[in-house]
Amino acid sequence: MKIAILPGDGIGTEIVAEAVKVLKVLDLSFEMEEAKVGGAAYEAHGHPLPESTLKLAQAADAVLFGAVGDWKYDTLDRPLRPEQAILGLRKHLGLFANFRPAICYEQLVGASSLKPELIAGLDILIIRELTGDIYFGQPRGRRTAVDGHFPGAEEAFDTMRYSRPEIERIAHVAFQAARKRAGGKGGKVTSVDKANVLETFQFWKDVVTAVHAEYPDVALDHMYVDNAAMQLVKAPKNFDVIVTGNMFGDILSDEASMLTGSIGMLPSASLNAKNQGLYEPSHGSAPDIAGKGVANPLATILSAAMMLRFSLQQPEAADRIESAVKSVLASGYRTPDIWSEGTQKVGAREMGDAVVTAL
Amino acid sequence: MKIAILPGDGIGTEIVAEAVKVLKVLDLSFEMEEAKVGGAAYEAHGHPLPESTLKLAQAADAVLFGAVGDWKYDTLDRPLRPEQAILGLRKHLGLFANFRPAICYEQLVGASSLKPELIAGLDILIIRELTGDIYFGQPRGRRTAVDGHFPGAEEAFDTMRYSRPEIERIAHVAFQAARKRAGGKGGKVTSVDKANVLETFQFWKDVVTAVHAEYPDVALDHMYVDNAAMQLVKAPKNFDVIVTGNMFGDILSDEASMLTGSIGMLPSASLNAKNQGLYEPSHGSAPDIAGKGVANPLATILSAAMMLRFSLQQPEAADRIESAVKSVLASGYRTPDIWSEGTQKVGAREMGDAVVTAL
Ligand SMILES: CC(C)[C@H](C(=O)O)[C@@H](O)C(=O)O
Ligand SMILES: CC(C)[C@H](C(=O)O)[C@@H](O)C(=O)O
Repeated sequence: MKIAILPGDGIGTEIVAEAVKVLKVLDLSFEMEEAKVGGAAYEAHGHPLPESTLKLAQAADAVLFGAVGDWKYDTLDRPLRPEQAILGLRKHLGLFANFRPAICYEQLVGASSLKPELIAGLDILIIRELTGDIYFGQPRGRRTAVDGHFPGAEEAFDTMRYSRPEIERIAHVAFQAARKRAGGKGGKVTSVDKANVLETFQFWKDVVTAVHAEYPDVALDHMYVDNAAMQLVKAPKNFDVIVTGNMFGDILSDEASMLTGSIGMLPSASLNAKNQGLYEPSHGSAPDIAGKGVANPLATILSAAMMLRFSLQQPEAADRIESAVKSVLASGYRTPDIWSEGTQKVGAREMGDAVVTAL
Repeated sequence: MKIAILPGDGIGTEIVAEAVKVLKVLDLSFEMEEAKVGGAAYEAHGHPLPESTLKLAQAADAVLFGAVGDWKYDTLDRPLRPEQAILGLRKHLGLFANFRPAICYEQLVGASSLKPELIAGLDILIIRELTGDIYFGQPRGRRTAVDGHFPGAEEAFDTMRYSRPEIERIAHVAFQAARKRAGGKGGKVTSVDKANVLETFQFWKDVVTAVHAEYPDVALDHMYVDNAAMQLVKAPKNFDVIVTGNMFGDILSDEASMLTGSIGMLPSASLNAKNQGLYEPSHGSAPDIAGKGVANPLATILSAAMMLRFSLQQPEAADRIESAVKSVLASGYRTPDIWSEGTQKVGAREMGDAVVTAL
């Protein structure tokens, strides 16, 4: 088995180093090979996703990804900007299923913006379709408007689209995930759409409903995206699994992870049809704190655990990492982003060491 | 001056009745004429926005709108569903500028999901573009995919688009609103986009930046929509005016209003280039509580105040209504949605009466 290690930019290098340290301690038999991605790759090779990095990722069973991006690349042409690397990896590896858990750790309830009773015990899973929708839809560009409010004016446009098989496969992923979370039977899926306005999402709703016939034990409900954005604030614990498109999933998964107050703790997985996956923290490259050694490596370490479970068939090793993280939290270690009075403030390296010790 | 009164469905009739009662007490010289809209119009005339209702709205200086929608219309063809009425009114009246204040009333801080210190004193304004974007963009529909992941499969699609003058006019509205809120000079606008992925929103960002040159006293920053959904949860008070497109505005304005915990208190205004406007509460038709007399009429009453200020040139009357609402809250009157221990629970009618008395 082979893991591609792509630390990227900003705090990416610091947090991935800690996750690699943890993986090494487990002493499992897989190879790791590192490559540059994002701004770091642009500096070295003139492109955020160089051919060599893409090849490595394609040949690997899993990719452990840090984060990309920095303000200094804001003026580059869009195709050269760091985040194109992540879009390119999703596209070329066919990573259509994005798993974004939003979990509130018992010890970190106080870090949330929400009142403790609304957030304590939160454990929801957002499944975002990741290779379709308006993210990749063609045609797109600038042109002269021929109709609309200002015919003759300059305009820009994009195309939102979903095909039946694209919706079917992500719906299956969601129903199966709900069932698994419920212990093999049951669970609930909330499909988020905007069927009252968009053709694409009326179709989405129809197809998800059709797929549901194969999962009679799983409950299904439908919710408009604006209402979902509200219900996440009002009563997040009413959700179990949420499935939605690429654009709505981008917004709602970030909203949900911020609700927990500890986005530095939240891993993510992006899988293709062969269970090849890309694993990365839910947070970004945080250029403001990069190089200071204060970043929280736990989301990346937990992403490595997801990788062991989903792509590398090592569920026991995944469990061990997750238990180690819990015990480190219980011992009171905290990076600054999750620190509170009475706990011990540590840096990225000490946090990684603490996980290693707990293992 | 003429006001079209469109109560609509669900609690719409109850809450609009209270707002009309308040308007009548002011004894100003304008005419009011009522018409059916939404499901009620479909029942009576076979269409959610009958020609007669549209004509009335077009001829009026302002429209006071309740709410539309009920589950029982879910199986109708899309063009006949109640919410098409609101989309039709926006389109035919050219109501491109939607004002959605998110204000946290001092006495209602406890109703928020957020910790009091994060939400107390919140006073932000979301300006949503309301006649463009993927809401109205053509072409849209179903077809056989010729490219993408599954060529040959059935697919649905929509078109996102914005032209330069559409972006310019909403940017002007936002900069002017920020300046006005700051007392004639200053303020801050946050323009929300997804320029890293969408051509439409790279263009949006470019055009907003260009318009900003005319408002050197107003601060401008740009934020990606996923980050905005997070920052609203983390630190809503960091915002002043947010300006964004139709789709992102739909999601973010609902998220922001739910943050306050008292969406039953929040009015909205939708204006065209001639200051004709449609005024409606931020909440929906709530069919579950319709007919029970327990709905909160204050958002509609405050929408009537916005109407007096923006479309009917009666700023003093608007101030009077807003003061009356504040004093009613201070007296402890609460509809069930905002009720808490130690305050007095009242129904829609008693709440309307209390505002009348305070006037
Ligand atoms: C960087 C950006 C293109 C990306 C996205 O919008 O998908 C990011 O926000 C994410 O959610 O992974
Ligand atoms: C009913 C629906 C079409 C509408 C919208 O999406 O604009 C509503 O959600 C709103 O925000 O007014």
